[in-house]
Amino acid sequence: MKVNKNYVNLQESYLFAAIGKKVREYAAANPDKTVIRMGIGDVTRPLAPAVISAMQKAVAEMGVAETFRGYSDDYGYDFLRGTISDYYNKKGAEISAAEVFVSDGAKCDVANILDIFASGSTVLVPNPVYPVYVDTNIMAGNKIIYAPGNEENNFLPMPDENVQADIIYICSPNNPTGAVYSAEQLKKWVDYAIDQNAVILCDSAYEAFVRGDLPTSIFQIEGAKKCAIEFGSLSKTAGFTGTRCAYTIVPAELERDGMNLNKMWSRRQSTKYNWLPYIIQRGAEAAFLPEGFAQGKANIDYYMKNAETISTALSELGIWFSGGKNAPYVWLKCPGGLKSWEFFDILLEKANVVGTPGAGFGSQGEGFFRLSAFASNENTILAMERVKPVIESLR
Amino acid sequence: MKVNKNYVNLQESYLFAAIGKKVREYAAANPDKTVIRMGIGDVTRPLAPAVISAMQKAVAEMGVAETFRGYSDDYGYDFLRGTISDYYNKKGAEISAAEVFVSDGAKCDVANILDIFASGSTVLVPNPVYPVYVDTNIMAGNKIIYAPGNEENNFLPMPDENVQADIIYICSPNNPTGAVYSAEQLKKWVDYAIDQNAVILCDSAYEAFVRGDLPTSIFQIEGAKKCAIEFGSLSKTAGFTGTRCAYTIVPAELERDGMNLNKMWSRRQSTKYNWLPYIIQRGAEAAFLPEGFAQGKANIDYYMKNAETISTALSELGIWFSGGKNAPYVWLKCPGGLKSWEFFDILLEKANVVGTPGAGFGSQGEGFFRLSAFASNENTILAMERVKPVIESLR
Repeated sequence: MKVNKNYVNLQESYLFAAIGKKVREYAAANPDKTVIRMGIGDVTRPLAPAVISAMQKAVAEMGVAETFRGYSDDYGYDFLRGTISDYYNKKGAEISAAEVFVSDGAKCDVANILDIFASGSTVLVPNPVYPVYVDTNIMAGNKIIYAPGNEENNFLPMPDENVQADIIYICSPNNPTGAVYSAEQLKKWVDYAIDQNAVILCDSAYEAFVRGDLPTSIFQIEGAKKCAIEFGSLSKTAGFTGTRCAYTIVPAELERDGMNLNKMWSRRQSTKYNWLPYIIQRGAEAAFLPEGFAQGKANIDYYMKNAETISTALSELGIWFSGGKNAPYVWLKCPGGLKSWEFFDILLEKANVVGTPGAGFGSQGEGFFRLSAFASNENTILAMERVKPVIESLR
Repeated sequence: MKVNKNYVNLQESYLFAAIGKKVREYAAANPDKTVIRMGIGDVTRPLAPAVISAMQKAVAEMGVAETFRGYSDDYGYDFLRGTISDYYNKKGAEISAAEVFVSDGAKCDVANILDIFASGSTVLVPNPVYPVYVDTNIMAGNKIIYAPGNEENNFLPMPDENVQADIIYICSPNNPTGAVYSAEQLKKWVDYAIDQNAVILCDSAYEAFVRGDLPTSIFQIEGAKKCAIEFGSLSKTAGFTGTRCAYTIVPAELERDGMNLNKMWSRRQSTKYNWLPYIIQRGAEAAFLPEGFAQGKANIDYYMKNAETISTALSELGIWFSGGKNAPYVWLKCPGGLKSWEFFDILLEKANVVGTPGAGFGSQGEGFFRLSAFASNENTILAMERVKPVIESLR
């Protein structure tokens, strides 16, 4: 009896647990202080009325024999897969419903997609990075190499033709840096992946926050269907962090090592998964249809007001930062050369504001700090009013 | 770039697709005939009113800022984990909430649990067997050996001390045979697993159908906490096939190969999963509370009426069968020495009744046939009235 000893190589999962502990201890010692949380990336606005309405209707259907639904159709109901396919086609990415696989999370799919690749693969991840990309590859026994982000490249690492990779992670707009690749930059990654015979795993969880003329899907890039798998999510787009709906796009023509990856993912999921609740699929459909979509967009606009509040304050302070324009995260350089956990402590104690230390996202995050845009407009304004003098005192 | 070549060893997934194809072709060619479906194991009765009510309330909460829920607490909300722990304690199985991990499917968890074991493990599965156990192990590169079920052992294979195994699958009540292990028999499996330093993966998806004094959890057996992981599900218990809620019990003290398995599963899930929608967790809670539980039990009684109808008819015909007493499946020996697909065709054409050929569940299923108890009471009575003369003509 042997267990998966790759688990021994995992770092103790400490980032948000450590943050939580410090915040609890501070709050307990300072009950008179109002701590404003801009650390964890969880939404706060309620679900769109159109989504609520669709789910109420679906719940009622489940209570009546004639409209009751048992097992979902494989890969998701057509009404949802077709709606997602339309969403892609509208933004110039030709995706058919047969290439859409619904699920309960981009996090789950980004993790489980590794099942279809051989253990021991070389995976290229950005640094700083969403910790799940690293941990899941340690569990899979893969070899992890890093594409470093920094101030110089605006935390948008580009391909190095001397670096060999089998699997390439792209998250754009990026968590934690909020940086977004241009179409030209994504094309370079696509060309590199094709050249390497690699597969890009493109995490588009934040594509709905893009305001300007920047890509919102890798499939808007020529050649991407020959090398990319994309993960979309309603978590941040429609506030579904506690409702759970995502979609993975695997091009029908994507082949590697003599196997069709759409067929492999299809087999993996139909063997190990049973799709989403009917109720949730109806809610998700409503989030994409015009009424729900507009209501969801209003929530995104609300969060982006916070991003603007944070960005403006930092600009006035002359603090370097990325993000805040096309993503709900602002990634700032710690003032006075402070290390990220030092800055965390100071911000918590002197401004009563919680953020996320950049070091928690990898070595390239040291000296940087993430603030999220999911708090209320009022609290974000208040937070930055408190933060300004603290930062001024540190420079 | 290498993919997981274990996928090449998978059999073309044909069982329910092949059945579906034959049924569609028959129905198209015979539009005047009413085909009664007793093949696929999907529920038909609507959700309990108490469950519907709880979900309506939860949906409404998700539409209001003050009651909106984002990410679930890890492993599931306490209100659900505690309710499940109570359910276990009530039946004499001492399980704490910390040993309960909620999920969206026993199918998912039974598949994903293999992540924590080393590839190349030796897994002992029953034959006939729920195909997922086999396919997931092929994907994982494990070595599969079989414990044969047959008429002589009433499709309840027992341990063979000469057989080495790392992982042992038990499904009791069984899909597809409906057979149930006694406490004495389960104790032998527990002793064997401890002796082998193996882990039992106990699939208890049908435990709610047990009527007599038979085990409804492996944790009612002494020693099980030292060797077993159990998978429970609301799919059949509460009609949640399209609503999705399950729970995996990993004893806090379960260790193998120097690692604590509760901690490994905990890490696997918190890294690769984001738990259930709040709405579904509230619905699941209601399914366990007295009102919803009683309503769910009424549905189970309804299905078991069908099991009785099927069993009585077969007994009158002198056909050997297992199941039908403590499970929603009846596993019958094909009359006249027919092979299972031959019997399938005859039943479809002459009785217009759809079942599942035993051969689809493994070599020991050849010559046997599964009928499910999920159709309506009226249709099941009608089906057996049609089936009787057909069977009589074959003997």
